[in-house]
Amino acid sequence: MTLEALVSPGSVAVIGASAKPRTIGYTISAQLMKRFRGRIYLINPNYGEGYIEGRRAKFYRSILEVEDRLDMAVVAVPAKAVPKVLEEAGKKGVKVAVVVSGGFAEAGNYELEAEAVRAAGEHGMRILGPNCVGVYNAEVGLDTMFLPEEKAARPAGGPIAFISQSGAVMTAVLDWAAAEGVGIGLAVNVGNRADIDEGEILELLRGLDYVRVAALYLEGFRRRKEVEGFLRSAREFSREKPLLVYKAGRSADSARAARSHTAALAGNYDYYRALFRQAGAIEAEDLIDLFDMAQALALLPPPRGPNVLVVTSSGGIGVQATDFLLEQGLSVPKTPQPLADELKRILPPLASLGNPIDLTGGAANEDFANVLERALDYFDMALVAALIHPPGLDERLADHITAAASRGKPIVAVSIGNSPAVKELERRLRGRVPVYNSPRRAARALWALYRYSIKRGGSKPS
Amino acid sequence: MTLEALVSPGSVAVIGASAKPRTIGYTISAQLMKRFRGRIYLINPNYGEGYIEGRRAKFYRSILEVEDRLDMAVVAVPAKAVPKVLEEAGKKGVKVAVVVSGGFAEAGNYELEAEAVRAAGEHGMRILGPNCVGVYNAEVGLDTMFLPEEKAARPAGGPIAFISQSGAVMTAVLDWAAAEGVGIGLAVNVGNRADIDEGEILELLRGLDYVRVAALYLEGFRRRKEVEGFLRSAREFSREKPLLVYKAGRSADSARAARSHTAALAGNYDYYRALFRQAGAIEAEDLIDLFDMAQALALLPPPRGPNVLVVTSSGGIGVQATDFLLEQGLSVPKTPQPLADELKRILPPLASLGNPIDLTGGAANEDFANVLERALDYFDMALVAALIHPPGLDERLADHITAAASRGKPIVAVSIGNSPAVKELERRLRGRVPVYNSPRRAARALWALYRYSIKRGGSKPS
Repeated sequence: MTLEALVSPGSVAVIGASAKPRTIGYTISAQLMKRFRGRIYLINPNYGEGYIEGRRAKFYRSILEVEDRLDMAVVAVPAKAVPKVLEEAGKKGVKVAVVVSGGFAEAGNYELEAEAVRAAGEHGMRILGPNCVGVYNAEVGLDTMFLPEEKAARPAGGPIAFISQSGAVMTAVLDWAAAEGVGIGLAVNVGNRADIDEGEILELLRGLDYVRVAALYLEGFRRRKEVEGFLRSAREFSREKPLLVYKAGRSADSARAARSHTAALAGNYDYYRALFRQAGAIEAEDLIDLFDMAQALALLPPPRGPNVLVVTSSGGIGVQATDFLLEQGLSVPKTPQPLADELKRILPPLASLGNPIDLTGGAANEDFANVLERALDYFDMALVAALIHPPGLDERLADHITAAASRGKPIVAVSIGNSPAVKELERRLRGRVPVYNSPRRAARALWALYRYSIKRGGSKPS
Repeated sequence: MTLEALVSPGSVAVIGASAKPRTIGYTISAQLMKRFRGRIYLINPNYGEGYIEGRRAKFYRSILEVEDRLDMAVVAVPAKAVPKVLEEAGKKGVKVAVVVSGGFAEAGNYELEAEAVRAAGEHGMRILGPNCVGVYNAEVGLDTMFLPEEKAARPAGGPIAFISQSGAVMTAVLDWAAAEGVGIGLAVNVGNRADIDEGEILELLRGLDYVRVAALYLEGFRRRKEVEGFLRSAREFSREKPLLVYKAGRSADSARAARSHTAALAGNYDYYRALFRQAGAIEAEDLIDLFDMAQALALLPPPRGPNVLVVTSSGGIGVQATDFLLEQGLSVPKTPQPLADELKRILPPLASLGNPIDLTGGAANEDFANVLERALDYFDMALVAALIHPPGLDERLADHITAAASRGKPIVAVSIGNSPAVKELERRLRGRVPVYNSPRRAARALWALYRYSIKRGGSKPS
């Protein structure tokens, strides 16, 4: 059995759907009705029909009244009622239940959680959660999150899949990613992880063509089985696609906090680090770092080696970039003499030809194009500090950079500022060349690319 | 003699002013005419009069024709002509010349630079630059930057002063700060630092009431005199106000790049670290870190000790915050029992009362207010993870946080997302409670506060 119903069900029942605005049951129904490409059934014994976002909607008294085949049930009823509705959903043949309701292990109610799992298991139905915000999949318009998108935006889509142990983190990250253009297309919150765990989700993601990178936010596992499942799936996943992980709860004190949050055993960070190494996962330093690296891995080809070309209009940013690239273990080798000779003929006289190649405040868009065209052959990847404030530069620089990127070597950009031209430059780069507001973030992204290419055996070590 | 004319001149002459749009001489004139509160004189032998941004402007053939007393001259003429115009400006009694022109030491023309310094020195006139973008001071509307604000925005003002060795970095940072609400009110780019150096600028800033923090971007010093001047002034400055520094060019390879950028001797990072320690400066990891810390130090009182209260609506962010606070050497001690008992009576039953205090997705704005009101007495400072996506939270949470902050203990906030309510929350916090989009950045800011309070002897060590 695969868990495909978890991310692309043909039909979804909302158990605990509501016609009362601002309730969880209303918001989930409304979000699904807005975008979901499959069939939707609203379940609530208290309504025959009602209005959701101005549209008349039919309510079923019980899931058993639905005549269609049901792939997914989203469960948003009080915790105590959950085992009973799961029992019914299982009987109906639902494949996977997303249990949004809280009040289980995270509140000390372990027995109720076990009961819910048993009720589902009797019918071979799987559970996501409980205590989760569920699944967002831009590809099919699936959205079980109980917050309206006016309050928490959803990204338009993209090749990054996000697995989050925390629902609030998933919600906040999606709201952030939507405006920043971070290409998250799929997100799953495992919540209390009573049944479906990260390992199974990774196995599922491995088979999805539209997922190119998985980014995992983890506080900790609770059971040996989860660890083993993760290790097995992660190893297979990371052989085919990059797997990134950010682990919170790294010390005894923060692990205590994680325990009361998701009942996770977060302690012993060394143990987790070893696990991630064995799993072939690349570790991020925080959530921002996680998605900085994910964007590079989703968009760019692997580099063949550690040598980075730095091209800049700001000597200062060039110096900073070199610092951070070296700090990450990458190389910024000197410009080879034949290339320096060639560049000397075509670049403005004040340009600095060593690496970084500093085009100075006198640079024009075409100078960047000329450098990238001639120099990329000599290096494995490039960091372009695209500070376009100087008079000769503008947003069209983006087009030169994306053109260079299309020739097969990985390029990341740095852009700092918020004026309209800067924003337009970033918009044009987005989805093709990852762009960061600091050379440190860009260097981390190149490091992740290099690290992944080493793992895959396609790159020579530095 | 003080350098007050550098930041608040009563009158400014633009030597090399132009009526031709998009030239450097035009843009500098236009920017000054827009906002400068003092008197402006445009100097160019080629015009009698002309139009700048649609306003008729008088041009003087020579600075010697101006009958007013002149405090500052902005020099934007070709490098070769610079010594001669400096000679004239000196004769006229100008106090300080901002030499925007490039083509001096940074291009290998050391002799021309020395000549310019001699020409000014003969009349006791001081030089900023050459090869600099000069000064921005929101307080008096002084703006010598040669990029129009449509392309590079300027921040509205604030208590942070920025000294940058790189003009491009200063420009990009101001453009970034303008939209992010980072309160930079004053910025100075030293460029080639032929005369006025960081030490003298710090001495000047020490005496300015509207400057509460200085943030320095440095690639390296060139001369022993600069180092000694910096050390002396920085020591005095940091006894009165916080001094932050971000040093680029940390390795031999990046130092090579810095040398060709600003002719700076950037090497030997250990030497610089020792220098900063002796100077009482706090070191930042990159430009973003520099201003993250600067905002906290500009807005918040010093903490009395290392103990941090973490309040959150997202358990996950609470766990992450704890990780980063501990990593920075701060403490997140358990909630004392009397406080836990008190909170238990008033908070929702699912709230987690240990520290972090996790109000969960069921939190209301008032729960945060209640915690801050009762708990702050037991801790030295607070990190409030204000993720307002849950149904009971909204932008009004900001008002509770600023109210708590006004009671004298330092508070920083974490906010993640981009929806309208999130943006409004951040807008309400800005200028009163620093707000960061990651717990890591917030933890760094609290560390800087604690570090500074230790230096000042007002805090007990952890």
